[in-house]
Amino acid sequence: MTLFERLKAAAPDAWRSYVAHPFVAAMGDGSLPEHAFRRYLVQDYLFLIQFARANALAAYKSRTLADLRAAKAGLSAIVDMELDLHLRLCARWGLSPARIEATPEHRATVAYTRFVLDCGMSGDLLDLHVALAPCVLGYAEIGRALAPAGVEALHAHPYREWIGEYASDAYQDVAAAASRHLDDLGARYLGANRFDELAALFAKASRLEADFWQMALDASEP
Amino acid sequence: MTLFERLKAAAPDAWRSYVAHPFVAAMGDGSLPEHAFRRYLVQDYLFLIQFARANALAAYKSRTLADLRAAKAGLSAIVDMELDLHLRLCARWGLSPARIEATPEHRATVAYTRFVLDCGMSGDLLDLHVALAPCVLGYAEIGRALAPAGVEALHAHPYREWIGEYASDAYQDVAAAASRHLDDLGARYLGANRFDELAALFAKASRLEADFWQMALDASEP
Amino acid sequence: MTLFERLKAAAPDAWRSYVAHPFVAAMGDGSLPEHAFRRYLVQDYLFLIQFARANALAAYKSRTLADLRAAKAGLSAIVDMELDLHLRLCARWGLSPARIEATPEHRATVAYTRFVLDCGMSGDLLDLHVALAPCVLGYAEIGRALAPAGVEALHAHPYREWIGEYASDAYQDVAAAASRHLDDLGARYLGANRFDELAALFAKASRLEADFWQMALDASEP
Amino acid sequence: MTLFERLKAAAPDAWRSYVAHPFVAAMGDGSLPEHAFRRYLVQDYLFLIQFARANALAAYKSRTLADLRAAKAGLSAIVDMELDLHLRLCARWGLSPARIEATPEHRATVAYTRFVLDCGMSGDLLDLHVALAPCVLGYAEIGRALAPAGVEALHAHPYREWIGEYASDAYQDVAAAASRHLDDLGARYLGANRFDELAALFAKASRLEADFWQMALDASEP
Repeated sequence: MTLFERLKAAAPDAWRSYVAHPFVAAMGDGSLPEHAFRRYLVQDYLFLIQFARANALAAYKSRTLADLRAAKAGLSAIVDMELDLHLRLCARWGLSPARIEATPEHRATVAYTRFVLDCGMSGDLLDLHVALAPCVLGYAEIGRALAPAGVEALHAHPYREWIGEYASDAYQDVAAAASRHLDDLGARYLGANRFDELAALFAKASRLEADFWQMALDASEP
Repeated sequence: MTLFERLKAAAPDAWRSYVAHPFVAAMGDGSLPEHAFRRYLVQDYLFLIQFARANALAAYKSRTLADLRAAKAGLSAIVDMELDLHLRLCARWGLSPARIEATPEHRATVAYTRFVLDCGMSGDLLDLHVALAPCVLGYAEIGRALAPAGVEALHAHPYREWIGEYASDAYQDVAAAASRHLDDLGARYLGANRFDELAALFAKASRLEADFWQMALDASEP
Repeated sequence: MTLFERLKAAAPDAWRSYVAHPFVAAMGDGSLPEHAFRRYLVQDYLFLIQFARANALAAYKSRTLADLRAAKAGLSAIVDMELDLHLRLCARWGLSPARIEATPEHRATVAYTRFVLDCGMSGDLLDLHVALAPCVLGYAEIGRALAPAGVEALHAHPYREWIGEYASDAYQDVAAAASRHLDDLGARYLGANRFDELAALFAKASRLEADFWQMALDASEP
Repeated sequence: MTLFERLKAAAPDAWRSYVAHPFVAAMGDGSLPEHAFRRYLVQDYLFLIQFARANALAAYKSRTLADLRAAKAGLSAIVDMELDLHLRLCARWGLSPARIEATPEHRATVAYTRFVLDCGMSGDLLDLHVALAPCVLGYAEIGRALAPAGVEALHAHPYREWIGEYASDAYQDVAAAASRHLDDLGARYLGANRFDELAALFAKASRLEADFWQMALDASEP
C-alpha cells in the first residue's frame, strides 16, 4: 500500500468531498455551466503561480542534488510551459491575459495555496508534498475517472481538453512518479508516531481543494 | 499622516468592507445572533494560535535586540495570557476548551492566517506587520466606534465585554504603539516605489478579515 | 538508547573533537589564558542572540500548543534572563556591554549559528533540535566532566562560575528534558532511512562547535 | 551612483580585503600554488549548490512573475549548466566528481553560504541580493582586474580559464544586469533609514568572501 493510498484510506470523507465534488460530476457529464468553468480557469492560473512558489520552496529545502534537480524541474515545467499552456486554454474560452491578471485571488485560492506554502515552510519536504498531493495526484485520479473508456471516447465532450490533459499517459506518469517520491520521503521522514498528523494535514488540504471547486460553482452568471 | 492612515486612504472600499461589516454593525446594536458570535469566538481562538506563530516569525526575523524583545513580548502576551483570557470568555458563552480544540479551522481562518504568515515569510517585517494591521489596528478602531460614549455607557449591552476589551485604554495604547512601529518600519523599508504593493497587500488582508466576519454570520443556527 | 546517545555513537570523532577540545581541557585544569576566555564570552553573547532566533523559529514551526509553549519558554528564558546573566558574567571579566555590542561576529560564530538556523528552516523541528544538541546537551556533558567531584570541590577554580553553571542540577535538568524532547521528535519524524542524514548533520554541528572553541584559543593576547 | 557603488563606498576596507585578497593577487600573477586553487575549486562547487538554493529562495520570495522568472532562470543556469561546467573544470585539474562530493564543506563555505541564506530568509529580496552581491558582482570586478589587456593577452597564464570566464563579455553582462536589478530592488525596498543596515550586511558578506579565499590559501600541500 503506497503512502498516498494510506492517506486516502485515513481521510475517506475529505477525499470524497473533493474528487466526487458536484463540480467534478458536472464537468464529467458535461452539464457544468461555462461561467463556472471560466471562473475555475482564471483562479487556477493564479493558483499555478503559487504552485510555482511551492516548487521553489521544495528546491530551497533540498539537501541532495537529486531532490534539488527534481524540484527545479517542477518549477521549470510551470514557469517555462504550464503557465503559457494555461493562458492558451484560457484564450480558447475567451479569457484574455489582461483579464486574468486583473482578477484578484479568490479567498478559496488564497486558503489552499497559502496553507500548502505554510505547511511546507513550517514542516519538511514530506509535509509539503503531502499538502500538494490532493492537487498533483487528485487531478490524475479525476482525469482517469472522467474518461473511463479513454479520451477518444469523449468525442465532442465540452470539457474534453481538460479531461484529456489529466487522463493522458503523460500526466498519469507524472502522478505515478509523484506517488513514488512520496513513498521515498515517507521512508526518510515518517516516524512511528507521525501518520495521524500527516493524515489530518492531507484531509485539510483535500477539503480546501473541494472549497476551490465550490468557489467556481458559486460563480454567478456573468 | 501615519503609514496606517495612508494605507486606509489607499484602500477605502476594502477597509470599509471590514470595519463596517454587517457583523460589526449587528454586534454594535446588539442584534447579532448569539450562535454567530459563538462561531466567531471559536474561530478567533484558532486564529490566535496562528497569530502567535506570526509573532514568533517576527522574532525570528529580528535583526536588533529591540525588535527581538518587542516580538517576544507579543508572543508571550498571547501564549501566557490571551489564550487563557479567550478560553475564559468562551466559557462564559458556554464553549468548553474540548469543544473549541475539536473544531476544525474554517477556510476563512485558514485564508487570512496563512496569507499573513506567507506575506511575512516571503517578505520582510514591514510586510508582516502591514498584513497584521487590519487585525491589530482594525480592532482598536472598531472597539472605539462601538463605544462612542465610553464603555460605561454600554450598560447591559450583550457584547459589552468584547467591545469594552478593544475600546479600553489598554488596547488603544497597544494599537497606538503598533502604528508607531509601522511608521518606524516604513522609515527603514519603504522605498520610493513600494507603496502600491503594500497598499494592495493591506487591501487583501482587510478583505480576508471581512470574510472572517462573514464566516461567522453564515453560521447556521445550532 | 536515547536518540542523543545514538547520534554520539554515530559520530564519535566529531563529538570528541568538540567535548574534549583543548579549550575545554584548559578550562578544566585552569590553564586557559584569560584573554581566550574573554573572547569566548563575547562571541558567546552574540551566539546567544542567534540562539534566541532559533527558539523563535521553533515556535513558528510548532503545530501543537505544547510545542509552541515549549519554544516560547526557551525564547523567553534567553531574552528575559540569560542575556542579562551573560552580561553580568562579562562585566565580572571586565567586558562592558558597549564593547560586546561593538564586536563583530567572528566567522566561527556565523558558521555555527547560521548553519543551525538553515537546518531548522530548510528541515523540520527534529533537524533544528539535532543541530542545537551539541550546544544544549554538550554543555551539560562538559559541565559534568569538569566538576567530577561536584561544584563545591572546585574551590577557587578560575572558571568555577562557568563550570558551576553547566554542572548545576538546574542545567542538567534542562539538558535531560531536551534529550527527552529529541526522543519525542524522533518518534514523530525519524523514518527508517533518515538516521544517517541526521547523524551527518549532528557531526557537522559538533565540528562547528569545536571551531567555536578554537576561535577563542586563537585569540591573540590583547 | 548605483546602489552597488554606494555599498562599496560605504565599506571600502571590507571590499578591499576581498577583491584585493592575496589569493586574488597570486592568481593574477600566476604564483598561486596549485593545491590552493584545487581546494578553492572543490569548495566553490559545494558553494554553488547552496547558491542554487539561494536562487530557489528568491523564486519562493517573488511576488511578480518577472521576479519569479528571473529567479527561475538563475536557478536553472546553475542546476542545468554551471554545476556541470564546474565539474569539467575540476576534471582538468585532476579532481573527480567522487572526490569532490566526498569533501565536507569547509567552515568558511558554511559561514558565507548560510549567512546569505539566513539574510535572505529573515529579510527581503533586497537583503538576499545584497548578500549575494560580493559573489555575483565581485567576481566580475576581479575578472576584469586580472585581465586588464583582455583575455587574449593572458596567453598561457595558468589561471587563464578562470580569469577568462569572469572577464568575458557574457559574465560582465550578467553582472551588469544584477547591478540594475539591485537598483530596482532598492527603489522598492530601500527606505530612508535602511542604508546603514544594508551596508553593514554588505561589509560582512564581503569579509566572509575574503575568508573563503583565505581558506584556500591555508590549504596545506597535499
